[in-house]
Amino acid sequence: MFLTRSEYDRGVNTFSPEGRLFQVEYAIEAIKLGSTAIGIQTSEGVVLAVEKRVTSPLLDPTSIEKIMELDSHIGCAMSGLTADARTLVDKARVETQNHRFTYDEPMTVESCTQAICDYALQFGEEGAPMSRPFGVALLVAGVDEYGPSLFHTDPSGTFVKYEAKAIGAGSEGAQTALQESYSSSMTLAEAEVLALSTLKQVMEEKLDNKNVELASVRSSDAKFKIYSTAELEAVIERL
Amino acid sequence: MFLTRSEYDRGVNTFSPEGRLFQVEYAIEAIKLGSTAIGIQTSEGVVLAVEKRVTSPLLDPTSIEKIMELDSHIGCAMSGLTADARTLVDKARVETQNHRFTYDEPMTVESCTQAICDYALQFGEEGAPMSRPFGVALLVAGVDEYGPSLFHTDPSGTFVKYEAKAIGAGSEGAQTALQESYSSSMTLAEAEVLALSTLKQVMEEKLDNKNVELASVRSSDAKFKIYSTAELEAVIERL
Amino acid sequence: MFLTRSEYDRGVNTFSPEGRLFQVEYAIEAIKLGSTAIGIQTSEGVVLAVEKRVTSPLLDPTSIEKIMELDSHIGCAMSGLTADARTLVDKARVETQNHRFTYDEPMTVESCTQAICDYALQFGEEGAPMSRPFGVALLVAGVDEYGPSLFHTDPSGTFVKYEAKAIGAGSEGAQTALQESYSSSMTLAEAEVLALSTLKQVMEEKLDNKNVELASVRSSDAKFKIYSTAELEAVIERL
Amino acid sequence: MFLTRSEYDRGVNTFSPEGRLFQVEYAIEAIKLGSTAIGIQTSEGVVLAVEKRVTSPLLDPTSIEKIMELDSHIGCAMSGLTADARTLVDKARVETQNHRFTYDEPMTVESCTQAICDYALQFGEEGAPMSRPFGVALLVAGVDEYGPSLFHTDPSGTFVKYEAKAIGAGSEGAQTALQESYSSSMTLAEAEVLALSTLKQVMEEKLDNKNVELASVRSSDAKFKIYSTAELEAVIERL
Amino acid sequence: MFLTRSEYDRGVNTFSPEGRLFQVEYAIEAIKLGSTAIGIQTSEGVVLAVEKRVTSPLLDPTSIEKIMELDSHIGCAMSGLTADARTLVDKARVETQNHRFTYDEPMTVESCTQAICDYALQFGEEGAPMSRPFGVALLVAGVDEYGPSLFHTDPSGTFVKYEAKAIGAGSEGAQTALQESYSSSMTLAEAEVLALSTLKQVMEEKLDNKNVELASVRSSDAKFKIYSTAELEAVIERL
Amino acid sequence: MFLTRSEYDRGVNTFSPEGRLFQVEYAIEAIKLGSTAIGIQTSEGVVLAVEKRVTSPLLDPTSIEKIMELDSHIGCAMSGLTADARTLVDKARVETQNHRFTYDEPMTVESCTQAICDYALQFGEEGAPMSRPFGVALLVAGVDEYGPSLFHTDPSGTFVKYEAKAIGAGSEGAQTALQESYSSSMTLAEAEVLALSTLKQVMEEKLDNKNVELASVRSSDAKFKIYSTAELEAVIERL
Amino acid sequence: MFLTRSEYDRGVNTFSPEGRLFQVEYAIEAIKLGSTAIGIQTSEGVVLAVEKRVTSPLLDPTSIEKIMELDSHIGCAMSGLTADARTLVDKARVETQNHRFTYDEPMTVESCTQAICDYALQFGEEGAPMSRPFGVALLVAGVDEYGPSLFHTDPSGTFVKYEAKAIGAGSEGAQTALQESYSSSMTLAEAEVLALSTLKQVMEEKLDNKNVELASVRSSDAKFKIYSTAELEAVIERL
Repeated sequence: MFLTRSEYDRGVNTFSPEGRLFQVEYAIEAIKLGSTAIGIQTSEGVVLAVEKRVTSPLLDPTSIEKIMELDSHIGCAMSGLTADARTLVDKARVETQNHRFTYDEPMTVESCTQAICDYALQFGEEGAPMSRPFGVALLVAGVDEYGPSLFHTDPSGTFVKYEAKAIGAGSEGAQTALQESYSSSMTLAEAEVLALSTLKQVMEEKLDNKNVELASVRSSDAKFKIYSTAELEAVIERL
Repeated sequence: MFLTRSEYDRGVNTFSPEGRLFQVEYAIEAIKLGSTAIGIQTSEGVVLAVEKRVTSPLLDPTSIEKIMELDSHIGCAMSGLTADARTLVDKARVETQNHRFTYDEPMTVESCTQAICDYALQFGEEGAPMSRPFGVALLVAGVDEYGPSLFHTDPSGTFVKYEAKAIGAGSEGAQTALQESYSSSMTLAEAEVLALSTLKQVMEEKLDNKNVELASVRSSDAKFKIYSTAELEAVIERL
Repeated sequence: MFLTRSEYDRGVNTFSPEGRLFQVEYAIEAIKLGSTAIGIQTSEGVVLAVEKRVTSPLLDPTSIEKIMELDSHIGCAMSGLTADARTLVDKARVETQNHRFTYDEPMTVESCTQAICDYALQFGEEGAPMSRPFGVALLVAGVDEYGPSLFHTDPSGTFVKYEAKAIGAGSEGAQTALQESYSSSMTLAEAEVLALSTLKQVMEEKLDNKNVELASVRSSDAKFKIYSTAELEAVIERL
Repeated sequence: MFLTRSEYDRGVNTFSPEGRLFQVEYAIEAIKLGSTAIGIQTSEGVVLAVEKRVTSPLLDPTSIEKIMELDSHIGCAMSGLTADARTLVDKARVETQNHRFTYDEPMTVESCTQAICDYALQFGEEGAPMSRPFGVALLVAGVDEYGPSLFHTDPSGTFVKYEAKAIGAGSEGAQTALQESYSSSMTLAEAEVLALSTLKQVMEEKLDNKNVELASVRSSDAKFKIYSTAELEAVIERL
Repeated sequence: MFLTRSEYDRGVNTFSPEGRLFQVEYAIEAIKLGSTAIGIQTSEGVVLAVEKRVTSPLLDPTSIEKIMELDSHIGCAMSGLTADARTLVDKARVETQNHRFTYDEPMTVESCTQAICDYALQFGEEGAPMSRPFGVALLVAGVDEYGPSLFHTDPSGTFVKYEAKAIGAGSEGAQTALQESYSSSMTLAEAEVLALSTLKQVMEEKLDNKNVELASVRSSDAKFKIYSTAELEAVIERL
Repeated sequence: MFLTRSEYDRGVNTFSPEGRLFQVEYAIEAIKLGSTAIGIQTSEGVVLAVEKRVTSPLLDPTSIEKIMELDSHIGCAMSGLTADARTLVDKARVETQNHRFTYDEPMTVESCTQAICDYALQFGEEGAPMSRPFGVALLVAGVDEYGPSLFHTDPSGTFVKYEAKAIGAGSEGAQTALQESYSSSMTLAEAEVLALSTLKQVMEEKLDNKNVELASVRSSDAKFKIYSTAELEAVIERL
Repeated sequence: MFLTRSEYDRGVNTFSPEGRLFQVEYAIEAIKLGSTAIGIQTSEGVVLAVEKRVTSPLLDPTSIEKIMELDSHIGCAMSGLTADARTLVDKARVETQNHRFTYDEPMTVESCTQAICDYALQFGEEGAPMSRPFGVALLVAGVDEYGPSLFHTDPSGTFVKYEAKAIGAGSEGAQTALQESYSSSMTLAEAEVLALSTLKQVMEEKLDNKNVELASVRSSDAKFKIYSTAELEAVIERL
């Protein structure tokens, strides 16, 4: 009586008899193929860490961008289709700048995340930015008047706040590790180490200063910063 | 002679030989996958209660919004696709504000519900907000010149007034429970307890102050209010 | 040599080899799933009666609208998709008001019915109000310079005048009953009773003042009126 | 090597390998499902007669319009989808009025027929009045400077002049009867009788003054006229 | 490895693996279903002759137009879908009049044919006159500054000049007959007879003054003329 | 796991799993069905020669145009769908005239070829001249400031410069023959003979002054010229 | 339960259940059919080398362009569909010129590469330059304020920086060879030799001054230059 599951895939934005939207679920699969990313929120700020897949020794790892600034007080780590992420990042940058211009104050991290999700939600509609869901998950980290916060967005256009969250190929193992080790009283320095040690567990290659990237937004100055090689090595040393 | 049922699913807005619109029926299935929500109307006001699915201990439950304000005197609880609900809520907020601006008076709860349904009804048409039905049901609660009222909307764009109504995954059991226990002479305090006790019966996890949310619009001041953790705990205590 | 019947269903507006338009026929099926409605024309005016399906004791039956006013002298009863009916009723209300404004006289019942049908007929065309046929039948009742009249519209955009007509799930039995009992010399009071007694025969539940609705347009004042609970009870008493 | 015939039906306006347009052929089938209509041209004018299918004793047969005026000197009888015919009739009325306004003279019957066919021919094209062929045949009768004339149009947008022509469900038998009895020297009175006697042969029900309609355009005054019940009864008497 | 031939038919304007456009080939088949038409060019002018299919004795054969004037010095005979031909003829008439208006001289026969083909070639493109190829072949005959000439157009939008050419159902036999009997030194009178005698060979019915039509453009006055019944009978007599 | 090759044909502009665009490959097949054309470049100018398929003795071969002028110094020979070639030739003529008007100098042969290819490349896109690839190959010959040159274009929108090139049904044999006999020190007179002798080898019919066409652009005057029958016969004599 | 892999190919921009975009993967296959291209970055500048497929001795190899200038300080080598590359090159040329005009400084190599990728990413969307992914990979080489750099773009719209990179049919073997022999302390002259010797290993034909092309951008003057035949021969000699 029912079509097999796959017959519903063709309509980009159509319900299956069980009330599911398969293209959204498949986009979530795209994220499971992506490199692992981790976010940890502490009272001193939020840490973001990502794995970089360096497929050739002749490839320059600094040209792989998996962590990007959205505004001076907000950054994000991504997993999934990098090109899709770029579209969302561009949208977020415009939104945060518009907010500063209109209201003369920084956008809150939640509003910024909401703007990204509203945009991502429109896939498949006339005049939409995309004819399919965005195949990317973001960890949005920032510090605003409500303190440091970490949000997770997915291709369905929903977002939730997390204390610590892992996405991408190694997310299952990483999330379990985070649950075991995370404490809301952690220092930022401890969070840096936890982020890298968790990545280390789920990465196939040996973790070094080329195949991971680290960033943070500190509560003290509310500035997003991607770590320099030296800063990264200092954290690796502490592992 | 007939196509199997599923062959009609592809046309988003096409009749089957029995005169049915399957995409609408599948959207209704989407709601059955959602978390349970309950609304109860008394002469002292209307109560809304929802279950929150806290899938990870690191997730911040306050970032899951299942009850939202539409205007100062109207709120709604939702079950189904949260992102779809957000579109309807945005529409309702614009409509209620337009009504206040144009007529200098609050919109009635029924007119507000009608506006949501008119909007939801247009799916699949050119220039429509959605190419598929909205996969969400709302319980719209409010107080206006006609007193307190509770409406239920579904993906087909129809709405009906209820004294007490449950939607979402546990709606079947919850509705039976409501039918047994509801009385039109209930106080609002009794309705708060009935809403939570009904949720408790259908939730898999143990009900606590993190995985449910409570809200009400009181007849006395016609103000929609989401309960603070303290207020919620007070009601849980009374269970 | 021929495709099976069902292969033609996908083209919303395409002929089958026998020259049939299946989507229109399927829309007519949608009406057979609807609640029963009855219209009876007498020299003293026209009576409309509908069954309401009250699926839950907590549901407020007054919020189920199956009879609606089109203009002060015209009303209609509907069977099928209520949301589709609302679109047609809105169109009719605009048309009748435009007619009053332009010609300073009420629209005739036939012209009003024609306007509804012209609108319904455009389904599936570019810029049309609907991409599929409207899944609703209307009984349009009114009084104009030509006296009282009752029209029946269907999803194909055709309309015919009837002395008495039943639509919806129980239409077959009801129409037979009407044919046996109708007389063109009936009084309006007799027609009210005939309408309810006919409904009673085809309804599964016991008829009461909650699950039926009654309305009429009288020749004397050409005013459309939905009966109050008291007026309805008075008629039920006469049964 | 070839697709079965039916595989070509989906493209509304696509050739089959044998060079046929199936949707047009299927539209012609729709006409064979319609009620029978007859037209007879004499030197004294043209007669149109149609069968009306009165499916219920409570239905008012005068509300079934199968013969319509196009201009004061042209009328038409139809068979097939009545709602489609209405679109063509509306177009013809606009064209004839435009012609009168622009040239200050009545449009000829042939030009009027040509305008209908040009319009019907555009089906399936962008911006066309219809996405499928019109499922209706017309018998266009009129009197102009060239005398009385009778044209037959079909869904392919072609038209031909006839001395006498039958369309609809009973057209085969009726056309044979017309061929046997028609004479170009007939009076209009004789043609009236021939039209009704031919209809009588092919109708399932007994012909009476309710289930047929008669109209004519006389050469003497070039006025199209639908016969009143009295006039119709007078002709039936002469049968 | 390959689809069967017929699978390519659905794309109106798509190549098959052998580099063929099937819809064009099927449109050419439509012409093979049409009535036969013949064109013969002599130094004294060009003759066009067509068969008319008189399917009923009550049909007026003069209303079947298979030969039409394009400009005073150009005419055409057609075979295939008459309604398609009408669109091309209308286009040609506009083009020839535009040419006269712009350059104050008659369009040459070749330019006129080219204009028809340019138009026919655009089928299936956005904003094109037709979504499928035109299912008609034309024989374009005319006299211009280069003398008398005869062109043949087909649905692919190509045209070639012929001394004598037959199209339609009987074209194969007729073309062989023309090849045997045609001489470039023929008089126009001889060509008239050859045209009719060739038609006679391929027609199923007996040729008479009702089921054929004859036309010519003479070199002497460059005027296109459709023969009156008397003129046609004179030629038939000479057979 | 893979679809058969042919399943990819339907998307006009879609990659197969091997990264191929089949519609382009099929369009190239259309050229292999076309008549043979040959181009030869010498220091004294470029020669173009084509075969004409004279399918009937009553057909006028001069009306078959396979060689056309693009500008006074550029011409082209074509093989494949003639009607498609006409569209490209029209585009090239506009481009060369625009270039003369804008820059007051003739367009180079390469720029002209590039313009044709840019145009042909857009097939299948919104607002493109064609919904499928152009089914034609061109040999573009001309003389400009860089001397004489010969370019070959194909349906994929790529072009390459050749010293001698054959296209169409006989291209394989003809290209081998050209490779054996071509010398870059040839005179134009020798190239004329080589072009015709090569055509002769691959034509089914006996080569005569009716079934071939010859043209050249000479370095001395940079003028494109199609040979008259006399000039053509003179070359045939030299064979 | 799942469709076979190939069923997802038809939706140009649709996820498979595993979260993959097959049309992008197939476009990458198109590049594997292309001729090999190599880029090597040294501190003295960047070298680009490509193989040319000279399929006929009569073909002029200089008309095959596989290396093109984007701005005076940036060039690119391509592999895959040449016509697609031309569209991207045109876009890049406009972007670099706009940048010079707006900011009065040369665009950086990375920004130029980003602009190409942003453009390529939009395939399949409304108003996009292409309905399918671009079937081409580019090696973008240039010298800017950050020194010499080499970027690789692919059809998914992502780009990465490389010290040395091979693309096209022979890329696998060539990349291995580059990894073995590349040293970041190489001189440009050594890189020229390495590029050609690597090409030599993967080319089927014997490498000569006709079937390869060489270009470089030197750090000293930041000028992109395609090598003349003499310059190329000098490098070949050094092999």
